[in-house]
Amino acid sequence: MEFKVNSKLLEKLLTKIIPAVPSRTTMPILENFLFELNDGLLTIYATDLEIALKSSINVVAEENTKLVVPARLLYEIVRSLQETTILFQVSPNGKTNLKTDNGVYTISYLLPEGFPDIPSFPENSEDRDNIGKMLIGGPELKKAIEQTSFAMSKEDMRPAMMGLLLEFTDEGLRFVSTDGHRLVNLLKKTVNIGFNDQYILPDRAISVLMKILEEKDVKILLSNTYVSFRAGDIEFITRLIAQKYPDYRSVIPFENENRLKIKPADLFSTIKRMLLFSPANSRKVKFSITQNNLEVSSEDIDMGSFARENIYCEYSGEPMDIGFNSTYVNDVISHLQNEDEIVFKLHSPTKAVIIEPVINKDNEELMMLLMPVRLNN
Amino acid sequence: MEFKVNSKLLEKLLTKIIPAVPSRTTMPILENFLFELNDGLLTIYATDLEIALKSSINVVAEENTKLVVPARLLYEIVRSLQETTILFQVSPNGKTNLKTDNGVYTISYLLPEGFPDIPSFPENSEDRDNIGKMLIGGPELKKAIEQTSFAMSKEDMRPAMMGLLLEFTDEGLRFVSTDGHRLVNLLKKTVNIGFNDQYILPDRAISVLMKILEEKDVKILLSNTYVSFRAGDIEFITRLIAQKYPDYRSVIPFENENRLKIKPADLFSTIKRMLLFSPANSRKVKFSITQNNLEVSSEDIDMGSFARENIYCEYSGEPMDIGFNSTYVNDVISHLQNEDEIVFKLHSPTKAVIIEPVINKDNEELMMLLMPVRLNN
Repeated sequence: MEFKVNSKLLEKLLTKIIPAVPSRTTMPILENFLFELNDGLLTIYATDLEIALKSSINVVAEENTKLVVPARLLYEIVRSLQETTILFQVSPNGKTNLKTDNGVYTISYLLPEGFPDIPSFPENSEDRDNIGKMLIGGPELKKAIEQTSFAMSKEDMRPAMMGLLLEFTDEGLRFVSTDGHRLVNLLKKTVNIGFNDQYILPDRAISVLMKILEEKDVKILLSNTYVSFRAGDIEFITRLIAQKYPDYRSVIPFENENRLKIKPADLFSTIKRMLLFSPANSRKVKFSITQNNLEVSSEDIDMGSFARENIYCEYSGEPMDIGFNSTYVNDVISHLQNEDEIVFKLHSPTKAVIIEPVINKDNEELMMLLMPVRLNN
Repeated sequence: MEFKVNSKLLEKLLTKIIPAVPSRTTMPILENFLFELNDGLLTIYATDLEIALKSSINVVAEENTKLVVPARLLYEIVRSLQETTILFQVSPNGKTNLKTDNGVYTISYLLPEGFPDIPSFPENSEDRDNIGKMLIGGPELKKAIEQTSFAMSKEDMRPAMMGLLLEFTDEGLRFVSTDGHRLVNLLKKTVNIGFNDQYILPDRAISVLMKILEEKDVKILLSNTYVSFRAGDIEFITRLIAQKYPDYRSVIPFENENRLKIKPADLFSTIKRMLLFSPANSRKVKFSITQNNLEVSSEDIDMGSFARENIYCEYSGEPMDIGFNSTYVNDVISHLQNEDEIVFKLHSPTKAVIIEPVINKDNEELMMLLMPVRLNN
């Protein structure tokens, strides 16, 4: 059987799908695309068993077929072609020819039977009542993920914390991540699925989502084990982390009565330099806070180096010295640096500190939390 | 003692000098800059014993001094500052303060005694007759190095071939590199130092030169063991490879009477795709040449994949099948792809092939040579 497709359209499609192809796997068939050709519509799938991507394109074909083709080889061939028409000639002997004006490329294909099933979200199935549905703007979702996912844990002691929590509540949708040292909690008030539930997206799903989200609106379908993201002609499906997310609310303090207001751009610039002076083992940086001055300092005794800077601030409370991990401060402030002004809510040098924009965006509440580290004196 | 300097001017200077600081070394003092302050001129040096960089800047100072400061730490501090004036306060206790409007940064320094000597090229010394001198445009030198250095050998069996040969002859200056599989020979006819000699630049010198060459003219001074490149306010000095370069002329064939003319852009595009099909062990690609058609093909038996393309060409000679390493063809053609037309000069499938632009640039002769590989049949 044969079908024809424009090389640049196919390249665009493959570029979207290839992020789901694993770079290392013990199941070689996952290094392939599944091609499903049905009534002139070519649907291409890739999966690593945790996530899957699929998208479709119209092609010129008279028959239907399914075949499994080497993903990276096909992608590299198509990508290296000038714009042209590619004629795929699928022979029964396990070979496919790709013919163009000047060349012919023969690659091996496999039968579709070995390719794993991709979970589907039939919108009109009997099961549809158990499926949560929501619509969100692509840029809005991308920004929310970008702003919250950095605090996900890298340690696999508690698998739930390695993912990003999507929590649907009466107030709206919360994006939450924490590694025990810092926590981010972003509430999107306008988003609702009609019931309250928690879904934890794995790390790999986050990084692939960041690649494929564009201007288009995203339709999200949520089941107990999978989530589907549909944007334009592409569908991204990920398995959820099947764990209970820890009760993050219990670590958020309420009695933090001292307020430190500061311009995040100033603090971000200072912290970048403190990273050069904070010792490799503790990464410690010290904040000495008085009414209108924040002194930030760091000392690396092994290197014999020391740094101290002063930043204007507004502070209500008793003068306080408090220590932080400079890397974690840097992460938090870098995700707040576009705010005009931020506020640190403090209680004591040993209690969790809350960091927030002074003015939240419309329909949004953003909160970050940072655990202090002990100072020596 | 104290001196003052603008942070952005210092950053610009350090950016030029830091490429000579080794990233790994068994001599920790090489991870430092040498600062030499003399009558308000601050000269900064860095070296890894093979290469050295130095440059100067005017500063506000009343005393002279020499000190050795940690290169990467200083560079990162200066780079992270907004534009400001830095006051260096050098204390006798081995500490230097860098003071700005908002901050103070203390770093340790070492005494200059341990810093290795940097070779110098005194232009008016008694030894000056043994020093070759030449002037060349920065972009011209950069392009010549870029076009020829790719063929330097990576294998340390023959150290001379790991470098780039600068050969001064009566005809002009030749840039030559070869790894035994391919050879590049670029003659710059207008360049002369008044006597004939060979100088071999090491690989690390090439990569640093490529970073620092700009629009400015470059003055080159050549001794028996070192070469100095001076461009604007920066001087780059490299040790030469103290070996005899192999007699590359003996491998250049003269009887290659068959001519294949082709557009390099067409061939480059084809070879990119053949790289995907040539087997990982041999990288073999086959050229089947007839009067007006070059058929390029490659087969990977392990992958069950095969590719064949046809390109228009003009060929004078008997039809010939000849094999090459696709990676080497790609390297050679990529450095000729801006030419309108190139010519392959062939004799037989087992003899070296010469590849040249059909029309050379003014005052320039460029020649590349490629060894064929055996075809199976």
